[in-house]
Formats: sequence, C-alpha cells, structure tokens
Amino acid sequence: MIDFERILSNVRERTPLVHNITNYVTVNDCANILLACGGSPIMSDDAAEVEDITSICGGLNINIGTLNQNTIPSMFLAGKRANALSHPVLLDPVGAGASKLRTETAAKLLEEVKFAVIRGNISEIKALAQGTNSTKGVDASEEDAANASNLDSVVAFARALSEKTGAIIAITGATDIIVDKANACTITNGHPMMSKITGTGCMLSAMTTAFVTANPEQPFEAVCTAVIAMGLCGELAQRRLTELDGNSSYRNYIIDAVYRLTAEQLVEGAKYEMR
Amino acid sequence: MIDFERILSNVRERTPLVHNITNYVTVNDCANILLACGGSPIMSDDAAEVEDITSICGGLNINIGTLNQNTIPSMFLAGKRANALSHPVLLDPVGAGASKLRTETAAKLLEEVKFAVIRGNISEIKALAQGTNSTKGVDASEEDAANASNLDSVVAFARALSEKTGAIIAITGATDIIVDKANACTITNGHPMMSKITGTGCMLSAMTTAFVTANPEQPFEAVCTAVIAMGLCGELAQRRLTELDGNSSYRNYIIDAVYRLTAEQLVEGAKYEMR
Amino acid sequence: MIDFERILSNVRERTPLVHNITNYVTVNDCANILLACGGSPIMSDDAAEVEDITSICGGLNINIGTLNQNTIPSMFLAGKRANALSHPVLLDPVGAGASKLRTETAAKLLEEVKFAVIRGNISEIKALAQGTNSTKGVDASEEDAANASNLDSVVAFARALSEKTGAIIAITGATDIIVDKANACTITNGHPMMSKITGTGCMLSAMTTAFVTANPEQPFEAVCTAVIAMGLCGELAQRRLTELDGNSSYRNYIIDAVYRLTAEQLVEGAKYEMR
Repeated sequence: MIDFERILSNVRERTPLVHNITNYVTVNDCANILLACGGSPIMSDDAAEVEDITSICGGLNINIGTLNQNTIPSMFLAGKRANALSHPVLLDPVGAGASKLRTETAAKLLEEVKFAVIRGNISEIKALAQGTNSTKGVDASEEDAANASNLDSVVAFARALSEKTGAIIAITGATDIIVDKANACTITNGHPMMSKITGTGCMLSAMTTAFVTANPEQPFEAVCTAVIAMGLCGELAQRRLTELDGNSSYRNYIIDAVYRLTAEQLVEGAKYEMR
Repeated sequence: MIDFERILSNVRERTPLVHNITNYVTVNDCANILLACGGSPIMSDDAAEVEDITSICGGLNINIGTLNQNTIPSMFLAGKRANALSHPVLLDPVGAGASKLRTETAAKLLEEVKFAVIRGNISEIKALAQGTNSTKGVDASEEDAANASNLDSVVAFARALSEKTGAIIAITGATDIIVDKANACTITNGHPMMSKITGTGCMLSAMTTAFVTANPEQPFEAVCTAVIAMGLCGELAQRRLTELDGNSSYRNYIIDAVYRLTAEQLVEGAKYEMR
Repeated sequence: MIDFERILSNVRERTPLVHNITNYVTVNDCANILLACGGSPIMSDDAAEVEDITSICGGLNINIGTLNQNTIPSMFLAGKRANALSHPVLLDPVGAGASKLRTETAAKLLEEVKFAVIRGNISEIKALAQGTNSTKGVDASEEDAANASNLDSVVAFARALSEKTGAIIAITGATDIIVDKANACTITNGHPMMSKITGTGCMLSAMTTAFVTANPEQPFEAVCTAVIAMGLCGELAQRRLTELDGNSSYRNYIIDAVYRLTAEQLVEGAKYEMR
C-alpha cells in the first residue's frame, strides 16, 4: 500500500522548489499545477543562469517540447549541476521520435545526465530507448499503446530502460506503467478527455518532479502517487463538467482538483496495482 | 450553402495535425482550440527541426507575433518544406505595420512561401499588401475597418491580394470578409467583447489551418466555416457569461464552445452571405 | 484621498498601449489583465524591432523573468527609446537575487534606463538595491517581509531607493508599500491565496504600467490605485470561489474582477493609508 497521506503531506509541508526548463506552450499550466500540489515553480532556461537557478532549487524538470539552440545547452548545464548536487532530475522527452533534433537531444541527455525519473507516452519512451523516429507528433501511436495483452512486454521494456538508466520509468496512457529495477505499478486512473487538453503530460511531469523532490525516502511511491493524483484529478474534474464546459474549463478544473486534493481522496479513488 | 456538416466532420474524423510556429503570448490557447475543434497541435520553432516536424504534419500555421531572429529562419524553412509537400500553409501577419521587422518579414514570407490562406485584421492585411507601417499595435485602426460603405472596395482589395498571392484572404473584424479569385463571403458572427481577449485572431488562425488541412476538397468553404465557427462560439460564450465573469472566463468559454460545437449550431447560427 | 474615479476612467478612456518585454510563463495573463483593466498589450522582444514597437506605445513594462541572451539587449534598447520618448518605464525584477544574471541585469538596467516605477517583492527589491543574491526563487523570504514592526525601516529603505533612482518604488506583499520622494502609502488589500497563482506580481506590473501611462498627471496615485485594484480583485475573486475551485479558477476570477472593476468598488474596498 502506498502511504498517500505521508507522500502528499511531504509535498505540502516541504514546498519543493522545482526548476523547470520547459516548453512555452504549457509552461503556465506547469507553474500553476506546481503551486496547486504544494510545490513552488521557477522557470529559467538561459545558459548564463541555469546553474545558479538549479542550485537554489530542490529538483529539476527538463521538458524538451519547443527545445531550441539556446535552451538545449541549458538542459545539459542544469542537469549536470543538479546531478552534482544530488537533486532529482526528471526528463520529459516530449515529441521524441518526431524530429531528429528531439530524438538525438533526448538520447544525449540520457548519456550525460543521470535522471531520477523519465516520464512520457509509450511512443516517446520507445523513441528514447531505441533511437527511432516514429512518433505521430506529441501523441502516442495507437499501435504502441499498452493494453491487457502486451502489458508484460511493456513492463519488461520499461524495466530494461530503468536498469540501463537508473531512472524510474513512467509510461503514461490509458494504463500507466511505473517501473524501476525492483518494482512495477500499473495505474488506471484518468479520463479519455484528458487527451483533449494540451499539457496534461507536461503538467504531470512538473508535479512528479515536486513529488520526488519532497519524498527522497520513497521516490518510486512518490512517482506513483503523482501519476495517480493526476489521473484522479482528471476524473474529479470530469465529474464537474457542465454541458457547456469543454476542454478549456476542464484544464482549469484539473488544476483546481489538484489544489483541493486530499489524501482521503487518493485513498478512496486510487486505482493501482503493484506487480 | 456551405456544407457545415461535412466540413466539421472532416475536421473531427481526419484529426489534422497542425504545425504551429507562433507567438508565446497565445500559444496555449492556440493548442487548446486546435484540440477543441478536433485537430491536433504541435509547436516547434527551431531551425534544426522545423522541416522534420512539418513533414509529419498536415498543415502549417505561421504567426509572426513575437517573431525573433531564431524563429524567422524557421518560418521560411518550414514554409518551403510544407510547400514541397503540398501542405496548406496559413500566414497570420500579427502586427504587420507595427515594426519594420514584422512588415518586412511578412512581405518576404509572401515572396518565398506559397500560402493557402492569409488571415489578419484589415490594418495588418493592408500593411502586408502595401508594405506600409501604420498599424496601432496589434489591433486594427478604426479608419481601416470594413463597414457597409466601403465593403465593395475592401472585397476588391482582398481579391487583388488573392490574385497576386494565390491565397484565400480572410480579413476579420466586425464584418469578416473572405475572398479568393472566384468567391467572396461576408460574415457577421461574433461579439465585440472578443476584442477584450488576447489571441482571438491567433486562435482563429490555428483553427482555420486545421479546417483547410482537413478539407482539401473545399478550402474556401473551410475557411468560411472556421471564421463563422469562431464568431458563433464568441456569441455562444457571451450568452454564458454571468455578471461576475469577465474576459478570462470568456476566453475559456469560447474554447469550450468550440469543443461542444455541432453542425446544427452552425446551420442555425451562421450569419454569412456569399457575394 | 485618491481619486479612483478619475484614475480608472483615464485608463479606460485613454486605452494605454503597453509594450511588454516579459517572461513566457505569465505572458498570456499579463495580456489579458491589460485588456481587462482597459489597456491594450503588445509583446515584442527581438532587438530588431523593440525600438519600433515601443515608439508606437505609451508605456513599457520590463519584466526579467525568463530573461535570456536575446531578450536582455532588447530590454536596454527599448528602455532607452522609451526614455527618449518620455514614456513611463516599469521594472519588475523577477527573481533578482536568485541568479547572478538576474541581479546584474537588473542593476545594469537601473544604471542605463530611467524607470518611472520599480515593482517587486521585498527580497527582489533588496537584491536590486544591495546587489546581493539571497532570494528563494521568485518568492519573498519570510525574514524580509514587511510587517508592523519593521514598516518604518522598509519605508525608509524604499525612499532611499526612490531618491537614488527617481522611480516610484512598489514593494508588494501582505502589506504593500508604495513610496516616492514625497509620499508613502501602505496597502493591505489582497488575499493570501494570491500567492498560490503564478504571475500575480507580473500581472500587477503590467497593469501598473497601464495605470501610470494613462495618468501622467498623478503617477504616484496611479501606482497606488493599480496595487489596490489588484489586491481588491484578489479579495473579490476569493469570495467567488466554490468548494471545488482552486488556484486555476482563482486566476480567471481575478482577471474577471479587474474586467468588471468599478470606481465604486475601489472607493468601498480600498484599504490604504497615506503616511
């Protein structure tokens, strides 16, 4: 059993300061969800300051959406500094597989930076592991998706990547799969409408960074809790939708639900299985 | 009569993947409205990857708001690659006329990239056509605005630009004017409060790109439908406002209305005239 | 007594066009709050155009969050041009003290650009005044916060900075302190939950720029009114929260409240004291 009470209260009491090098599409939502969950965000991506910024933070979230020639070097500088300081670093390989630049940058980051967590959809994680370009934009291909029939093989694939990188691997989709060397957890919280909002993945990565930063004693459970929390808040927010509400209000309601989230809601609503 | 049913269902069934090189002010709203209408967004603006990204997409939306020395070359690279692949490319000349850089970049883009659609307010489109600098920021000048007395001359002006560029010209304002070589359509949907939200023009450009990408058989009708849809959703969202709601909730409600939009609503609510 | 009626109606009737060089985290909220209060936003940060853009505007808002090697030179170019045109320029030293780059850039801006207003939290303003690095990210340190026991010393500190720079100094927090050479005003509007939204400071800076731009006859009162307005709208928005609403809806409600704000609400709700 995951101790949701302890993990959530650690986030809220320790107020982890998270340095984000992230895309400009969903950056505002990432900042607000970090505040909602109990963390504190700082965004900074210039090579001349990222080492200073990451030094005053507790964790680092590297998201390669809208990466560019100026921000790529900053990802390496910040990642190495965070490693030197033993801060947890998360990689969100947005769109890995969609361009040579993204696939190669993600691969090079894996070589030079030690990640505590890698979170992406199955197509991104496959592109990362295999160095291939097959992603349809920033969404997972249907043929890649985890389901009942291929779950064991996805877990095995994730475990191999975890053993190679030392990171906790979080593959999110209809069924989320969290794997490290010793543990595996499948999660079925969430709602299909979450895919109609830009940035649910980015927001989850930001929040996950806060959860692992605030829970160094139990990083695997912290990642699972963040993934469960995001899915559960997607469910809670969906129940709140009126017949006039669409994806924009839904986005607000998800962040609102994270703000209001209690350990009791997690205990009651979590749908996960340790394997 | 525009076949709204067919045009809208094409967007929703074909899920056009749209590459956006756009400003960082309204980029999140552009991504969410693309998802709301049934498309799928990807944002990317680094010269090292825009050709890869546009290759996996169906259409390209170039918006010159917050253009800079790094993103300008990317607009040309992506535009030419999209042309080579026969993907429709839309130009939104945000703030053309407000600075030499914007006016000249827009003019050079017109020379080197073939656009399927050019969408802007009357001042921006005039600056584009005439190479002059007279815009008041990113809003249209009152003296430029289309109205009953100058409608014919605005249509003639738009037709000349369409003949010169090969693009469908969409001049949006209180009365929207859509013109190509053979057709002209005026649209009076919309609500004045839409000008109190940042990015209604940017959102419309993104959505229009999705509509033309999903409707290669009928691009003119697709542009008209996108413009009607945006205006109609502005009306629907306005009716939903409570006495405490202002422009921020209004923005959410407009995207929500696009998410919920049906062909029936378009048939009932469209206010357009083919000329 | 501040003439709220006159100051607010000046903003709404004169529609100040504000050039913003600002971070990409909260830029959309800054644009929408400028529209909400009655101003008009334009965002532009490329060195090749910022002088053109600032020339067509009435005021300039420089915010150093997510500053980078491309935008820093633009801040100097725009600031000097705005000075040459006698446009009011506001500095928001976001995160000054958090990195050498931010502290030094802010200090150099102070040397080369004449600011009409400097607005930040106490830690940022101290870093600016003293050139030290002690900020915890983008939030104020608790030990720095103004309170009943140190109010006189904070006012004296702000006055010294005002005398050195010629700027109105606005130090915002639980108690806001606005100081120029001759006047001091303390404001206690606001709600603690405002710190759970990203960008309340950035939004206030953007709005303050609009207020001073539209009120050249009474800049000190204009700054006080903007600060009171932001705090009061934070209170009004908080009263509107349902038990499901969190920080994302709260953000929307604050901008909505600015959109709906009346001089009567300011007269009734303002909590300020001239000292």
